Amino acid sequence: MSATVEPVGLREIGRPDHECDVLVVGFGCAGAAAAYEAANAGADVLVLEWAGGPGGASAQSGGELYLGGGTALQKACGFDDTPDQMYAYLEAALGPHPDTAKLRLYCDESVEHFEWLRARGVPFKASLYSTPTWMPPTDDGLMWLGENAWPFTEIAEPVPRGHRPAAPLFAGKVLMDALSEAATGAGAVAHVDTRATALILDDDGRVAGAMARRYGERVAYRARRAVVLTTGGFVDDEEMLGDHAPILLGHGKVSDGRSDGSGIRMAAAVGAATRRMGEVEAALTVPPLLVARGMLVDALGRRFINEDVYPGRFSHQALRHQPGPYWAIIDEEGLELIPEADLWGARPKHVAETLAELEESLGMPPDSLTVTVEVYNRHAARGEDPCFHKNPRWLRPLRPPFAAFDPGDGFWGVGGPSSGISGFTLGGLRTDLDGAVLDHSGAPIPGLYAAGRAAHGIHGEGYVSGTSLGDGTFFGRRAGRAAAGETPG
Amino acid sequence: MSATVEPVGLREIGRPDHECDVLVVGFGCAGAAAAYEAANAGADVLVLEWAGGPGGASAQSGGELYLGGGTALQKACGFDDTPDQMYAYLEAALGPHPDTAKLRLYCDESVEHFEWLRARGVPFKASLYSTPTWMPPTDDGLMWLGENAWPFTEIAEPVPRGHRPAAPLFAGKVLMDALSEAATGAGAVAHVDTRATALILDDDGRVAGAMARRYGERVAYRARRAVVLTTGGFVDDEEMLGDHAPILLGHGKVSDGRSDGSGIRMAAAVGAATRRMGEVEAALTVPPLLVARGMLVDALGRRFINEDVYPGRFSHQALRHQPGPYWAIIDEEGLELIPEADLWGARPKHVAETLAELEESLGMPPDSLTVTVEVYNRHAARGEDPCFHKNPRWLRPLRPPFAAFDPGDGFWGVGGPSSGISGFTLGGLRTDLDGAVLDHSGAPIPGLYAAGRAAHGIHGEGYVSGTSLGDGTFFGRRAGRAAAGETPG
Repeated sequence: MSATVEPVGLREIGRPDHECDVLVVGFGCAGAAAAYEAANAGADVLVLEWAGGPGGASAQSGGELYLGGGTALQKACGFDDTPDQMYAYLEAALGPHPDTAKLRLYCDESVEHFEWLRARGVPFKASLYSTPTWMPPTDDGLMWLGENAWPFTEIAEPVPRGHRPAAPLFAGKVLMDALSEAATGAGAVAHVDTRATALILDDDGRVAGAMARRYGERVAYRARRAVVLTTGGFVDDEEMLGDHAPILLGHGKVSDGRSDGSGIRMAAAVGAATRRMGEVEAALTVPPLLVARGMLVDALGRRFINEDVYPGRFSHQALRHQPGPYWAIIDEEGLELIPEADLWGARPKHVAETLAELEESLGMPPDSLTVTVEVYNRHAARGEDPCFHKNPRWLRPLRPPFAAFDPGDGFWGVGGPSSGISGFTLGGLRTDLDGAVLDHSGAPIPGLYAAGRAAHGIHGEGYVSGTSLGDGTFFGRRAGRAAAGETPG
Repeated sequence: MSATVEPVGLREIGRPDHECDVLVVGFGCAGAAAAYEAANAGADVLVLEWAGGPGGASAQSGGELYLGGGTALQKACGFDDTPDQMYAYLEAALGPHPDTAKLRLYCDESVEHFEWLRARGVPFKASLYSTPTWMPPTDDGLMWLGENAWPFTEIAEPVPRGHRPAAPLFAGKVLMDALSEAATGAGAVAHVDTRATALILDDDGRVAGAMARRYGERVAYRARRAVVLTTGGFVDDEEMLGDHAPILLGHGKVSDGRSDGSGIRMAAAVGAATRRMGEVEAALTVPPLLVARGMLVDALGRRFINEDVYPGRFSHQALRHQPGPYWAIIDEEGLELIPEADLWGARPKHVAETLAELEESLGMPPDSLTVTVEVYNRHAARGEDPCFHKNPRWLRPLRPPFAAFDPGDGFWGVGGPSSGISGFTLGGLRTDLDGAVLDHSGAPIPGLYAAGRAAHGIHGEGYVSGTSLGDGTFFGRRAGRAAAGETPG
């Protein structure tokens, strides 16, 4: 973060190189949604993108969008849902302390948002992928994202809400192809290979554009109505991570390599407030079926969660709260129940005939893993898990021989050190429901909007896949509309 | 935080009501240290204090100062210490991710800082209080702050470094009486009942003073050299807690009721960066000897730490990482080993002849507490604790009858709901080693300094008592000296 982000005066720049009504900075999912809506509302829209084309981190993601409340896709797959049920689940799963005002709106208007995505050409296939996984290897359009695991089964009617563009595994590219084409189709013009460096302020302190660099040249963009920052989070900036979210230092990064937090810093330099800068998403790249059929333990051989939750949840619980290293423990019989394809070619790090041997191999204290498995087995024999409430579908006593898998062996090709953990940041600019960026007195900064991971969205301490593309596109649209509605400065 | 903190232009205020070289905002420990050093360096110093007199949250604290490296007090009590040993302990105990540059300086100059405190009239008695506790009921000058518990015993030579002013229990008043008298004795003038509301900026963007309110009147303070913000943390501002440290929402507040984060917001409004805003200190108000001789378990009946650590550490570990409610479990024989005075009048919430009964009373899953005690006893019988390494001094098998104490019954009269947990915030303004406040490009904001809990200090995710008064006074002194050394604007 050595580069300066101090704002530049409109008077100082002389004649701007480009002018527009709404300047969108960043062409990921939030930027595409904002650009489409602003252009569709009649604004003259420019989109700056540091990379050589649109997509951002969104295009490299799994493409899940957390949607519900009774979408056409849910209905076609035979599920009834309501905004209240969706809210109840997300309030708990994203909690404690989600942004309830944003979350309420997000749930109430989710059906409309799904229709908007379909109308923009995002394809969804009306079929359910029902096995626990990170990303289905199929093009099924609907998946579970933790709704069918305890304690959520007692909080809301279990209904799947993971909406996926029709592609196997990383479907984010399909989403972004549709959204970026929709934005340019509506009239937004993209300037790629163009990296915004600072905001421009007019004499009244109103945001009036942004400075950028393109092929080493300094370029000034004047925005007559507003700037919308959709620059993403800051997982790629080591100094910002150290300042705000050191828990991700040394782990892999879920990003396109350009999540440098520059939008957050540019806005903060003009007085913007931030929110929840320490919160993160974290993924432990272990095959989900391995832990659902076995168990996930910490460095002291303790279970800490029902292993049939969405993998993002056990990952977060591990990284945030349990001493590592973590181990997936399973027995031979359990292993044989898992389809080969769902094991991702993972191989056990240790095998043992007794738990005492396995404890020793794993450097665990004597009796630690042993009593964990003993208690688990005693309850599993009765089809129960009174400690963590794993679904009986996955419960059976584990018997010798045993195997231990190291989640650090995760196969995913995500960047960064191969700690087996990778993540991104959830904290960002403090915004209102229309994406207006707020200052430290709670007032909107004139002419400035933000959405996506440059802003803090609906999240509390928890995370569910699909809520980042979800709130990025949802609040990106609102920011684009509000920006287009500003009176030209 | 409804009140505006937007900066005011120097031109707009007309003739200031008061002028000085260095304006210190807040008269707690950091403010007193800064005011003393600035006045001692020849500056004309004014100190603004919202309350009716000096002291702040510091005066209501236990008064511990984390000092070492071979202070005269350590030597008089028969302990050898070095800055390196002190650094090694704090790097681990305040970690992961402490501010290593600040920490290195803090340790290297700790002996000098102790002498400075003594020279300012802070009394220290050369005797050690050796029992685990939050605050000794005696006037002993030295206490352990976790150095003699695993894993720190393997990281650094165990040496006590808790330096306490000579008074039983809450000794912060003694510290603050001495430091505030030292500051005024050196020539600093205090304006009490005066609440700073916003910074003043000159035409060059240099901080040139502060606006304040006194008895409903608006008062303008011009600072020719610099402003030093020592306004404390933000545990008393619910909106800031919600934005940055929601983990403390609903818990008690370790403060004087005026830790409203206003200094952090005033500085952020002129472009200051912040650091680690989500980090907190948290205290579980359970008698330490009760858990040292028994065990501390979470809602699932699991131990999670060696209970002979400094209580701040088990508290932090509980609140941050374990599902509550928490319980202190002990047997009758263990209870009889604890002096009545060390039990603070605590009474068990539940007693039972068997662990199965106790589990049921506590709403724990069957077998959960039972296996925890079984494994503990098996190892304790051999004088071992291979899971958490509690010192053998505290280990013995627990036998019926058993008792469970609720830490929520904590006797302390700290403010807020009686959750049994109380805390304060550790995040704040990003400063350099001289307390200069940095902007979002990493450059110092001209004329602005900060120290104490308005700034981020030496802390990582961990906390040790005495490090807040410690880094507040240490970096407060440096900020005061640097502020006095500024060229008048």
